[in-house]
Amino acid sequence: MAKDFPSRAENYSQWYNDLVIKADLAENSAVRGCMVIKPYGYAIWERIQAILDKKFKDTGHSNAYFPIFIPKSFFSKEANHVEGFAKECAVVTHYRLKNSPDGKGIVVDEDARLEEELIVRPTSETIIWATYRNWIKSYRDLPILINQWANVVRWEMRTRLFLRTTEFLWQEGHTAHATREEAVQEAETMLNVYADFAENWMAIPVIKGTKSPAERFAGAIETYAIEALMQDGKALQAGTSHFLGQNFAKAFDVKYLNRENQLDYVWATSWGVSTRLMGALIMSHSDDHGLVLPPKLAPIQVAIVPVFKNEEQLAQISATVLPIKNALEARGITVKYDDRDTHKPGWKFSEYEFKGVPVRLTIGPRDIEQGTVEVARRDTLEKEVLQITDIENKIVHLLDHIQKNLYDRALSFRENNTFRVDTWDEFKQVLDDKGGFISAHWDGTAETEEKIKEETKATIRVIPLDNPLEAGKCIYSGKPSDQRVIFARAY
Amino acid sequence: MAKDFPSRAENYSQWYNDLVIKADLAENSAVRGCMVIKPYGYAIWERIQAILDKKFKDTGHSNAYFPIFIPKSFFSKEANHVEGFAKECAVVTHYRLKNSPDGKGIVVDEDARLEEELIVRPTSETIIWATYRNWIKSYRDLPILINQWANVVRWEMRTRLFLRTTEFLWQEGHTAHATREEAVQEAETMLNVYADFAENWMAIPVIKGTKSPAERFAGAIETYAIEALMQDGKALQAGTSHFLGQNFAKAFDVKYLNRENQLDYVWATSWGVSTRLMGALIMSHSDDHGLVLPPKLAPIQVAIVPVFKNEEQLAQISATVLPIKNALEARGITVKYDDRDTHKPGWKFSEYEFKGVPVRLTIGPRDIEQGTVEVARRDTLEKEVLQITDIENKIVHLLDHIQKNLYDRALSFRENNTFRVDTWDEFKQVLDDKGGFISAHWDGTAETEEKIKEETKATIRVIPLDNPLEAGKCIYSGKPSDQRVIFARAY
Repeated sequence: MAKDFPSRAENYSQWYNDLVIKADLAENSAVRGCMVIKPYGYAIWERIQAILDKKFKDTGHSNAYFPIFIPKSFFSKEANHVEGFAKECAVVTHYRLKNSPDGKGIVVDEDARLEEELIVRPTSETIIWATYRNWIKSYRDLPILINQWANVVRWEMRTRLFLRTTEFLWQEGHTAHATREEAVQEAETMLNVYADFAENWMAIPVIKGTKSPAERFAGAIETYAIEALMQDGKALQAGTSHFLGQNFAKAFDVKYLNRENQLDYVWATSWGVSTRLMGALIMSHSDDHGLVLPPKLAPIQVAIVPVFKNEEQLAQISATVLPIKNALEARGITVKYDDRDTHKPGWKFSEYEFKGVPVRLTIGPRDIEQGTVEVARRDTLEKEVLQITDIENKIVHLLDHIQKNLYDRALSFRENNTFRVDTWDEFKQVLDDKGGFISAHWDGTAETEEKIKEETKATIRVIPLDNPLEAGKCIYSGKPSDQRVIFARAY
Repeated sequence: MAKDFPSRAENYSQWYNDLVIKADLAENSAVRGCMVIKPYGYAIWERIQAILDKKFKDTGHSNAYFPIFIPKSFFSKEANHVEGFAKECAVVTHYRLKNSPDGKGIVVDEDARLEEELIVRPTSETIIWATYRNWIKSYRDLPILINQWANVVRWEMRTRLFLRTTEFLWQEGHTAHATREEAVQEAETMLNVYADFAENWMAIPVIKGTKSPAERFAGAIETYAIEALMQDGKALQAGTSHFLGQNFAKAFDVKYLNRENQLDYVWATSWGVSTRLMGALIMSHSDDHGLVLPPKLAPIQVAIVPVFKNEEQLAQISATVLPIKNALEARGITVKYDDRDTHKPGWKFSEYEFKGVPVRLTIGPRDIEQGTVEVARRDTLEKEVLQITDIENKIVHLLDHIQKNLYDRALSFRENNTFRVDTWDEFKQVLDDKGGFISAHWDGTAETEEKIKEETKATIRVIPLDNPLEAGKCIYSGKPSDQRVIFARAY
């Protein structure tokens, strides 16, 4: 399984691509830039969806569905939004094909040209605010707290499985509020939902903060983000939540009658995470032996491999294993008992190791005699022979422990790869030698930010929310600065 | 709420449209033919999804995701499929917009024309079989049992909310098998899953059967369908399952090495249901007072409305209601306790009635004194004052009873509107006067089928699976026939 699989040190980029494909997570499709998410990868995404969906509902949101197509003119209505989103996109111009006159295949029917082109949604603010206009008359209609699970398309020139694909899956929340305060509160609440999910489910430590104006969502007043550090020292933006002010309400003329009986524009937020999270998950924990999954997101949490020479031995082992399997499943743990005789135990060990199954139990005739079982954990690759007594509790405990260990390991990696830097030379040197997060002073201007990006490809990832004030000098311009920000090269 | 709401007898079509909009299920969007599914409608769809998804997994299927775009040339590969699906569809021709030279808005960038046009999927057999080609080498790779939840687009000229929309949501199963028998078995299994869901969850009786060759899915050897009868006497196809033979395997060159070490083409099925089910659900049970929902699919199963004049009364009522609410929720029942003081009880009664909430409890100060509660059921509109003792069990029982009653009512409607007809005149007369299902002899030819359709707009809905053989004469041609088939006008 893992042969021809490069190590991270050898070729990180190749390691990632091969891992995604060989662990059966996803593959490239016949359509440039679009991926096929395979059942094992999709099962992880379904767990992500289920957990987030519950969190959204627990915070008062409902799901709904808006059209995949957006009339071209909608994008022109919000000046910044059009610059950010209406350029590299899939454009539907016709609604019919016909048989080719030469009898070979089918061609576009030029008589079926749309009066106005339709854009396959790159994000849905415009079509949603055009809809909200009809839903909102007075403060009694507010807030509107809606989320949508959907596919979106952005025509990317360079794509990578999960990290940047032309079509991807995501959720996008779109809320409408009577006051600025309430909208800001909503944007921050959802940032916290994302951070909680990243840390406590994906086992990925994240920095919560705001984006610099240049890195904001097109049309936002403030963009909040959670930022994670990958094992190659590059940053990955794992989720964003935007306070949109009244920009979209003004663009789509959405006013409400407030409690004082006056008309005012509605306040908005939007927030989203995507299948990109799969890339973050893979790169945060996996190793040179393949995928490593946190137990809370693993489609198979425990794999049980019987070692047997004949039917009789298998029957004996199954008699021991099945009650354990049932007891674990009763506690909400997903177990795969792989009693196939078409594959050897060694093949199965490699398979579950490569696919990141957190715990593997192996049980053979000698274990049955001695009342033992071999327990292998994927995170440390350690094996241990345990008494089978009370094994359910031991496994539940071990899964919790693995979840925590993965988080601690990622946190420790991030701490060891976050550097406080005070000179421009050191900045460039750290970036090139080590990568990681660089905490440095910035003069707050877009010019400086742009120059740093041009010269080093590093960007301001985030201005941490709990950032302490500290007088200093901009790493690049030397001008005064009152706080450090987080720089990194990023996915 | 229900004012300006026409009765079914007055204007059935208007009744349906108004119901969908006024019950907050869906509405038309700014994009022609595409709908917005509103939170209340989407909550019903989510329940449908959750139940079906579990059934798919229980029968061994996994979810995956394939691209929304399909290269135009893929459609030409299967001769029948191209006729059926590659004509009225959304065609992506460009991948970039640019600022208009006149400075007004944005225009398509003609330099960014795709080499090959992409079709927004109307169904995914082609892209999926192009993918399966790389997944299948030997019988060990079979069966592949995959389902996809997705949006699809078919460019419809005349659209109606849920029933026929340009974009709709659905699931599409696509399976690959080593033998013909196994594929046929799969297609039948999924037909049974759909029938079970329709009858036991949606409370809609359906006829299981096969389609006539003319009504088959484009590319199928056999199309199985479940067919339901709506209250206006028109039929609605509620789900289809196709045995595709080796057609797509041949079109995409998907061969496998069988147990005898010989190459053979793979056998296929596909099966799907869509948001059209929402239309079937609405039209099967609803009445002139609005939506009626079977308890198993209702987003709110029990609404509790307190009748109070002041805070003190409300507090007293809440002290009684909240334990009941908690007890019901502990039994998996969704309860809304509507203690808002911004709306009067009468408004709330109308609201829950119109939105089809199966059971409404009303409780006021006198009920508190007397230990009673008023229970209103939506299906019969009956009200009853019950002792509050043991109310949870009474409600659980009532919900079961309502579920069963809706099914029985729909079944009885279908039985009263299924007619055995033996002459052409009677056929036309029944169609025009009563509608409904017509059980009649057909000579088995496509010509006769086509002529009947031309003259009456009736089509063969289904040839029932358990159809008894019966010698007779074709209703239209008078030629011999050995079984009756079900005709109807249909959605």
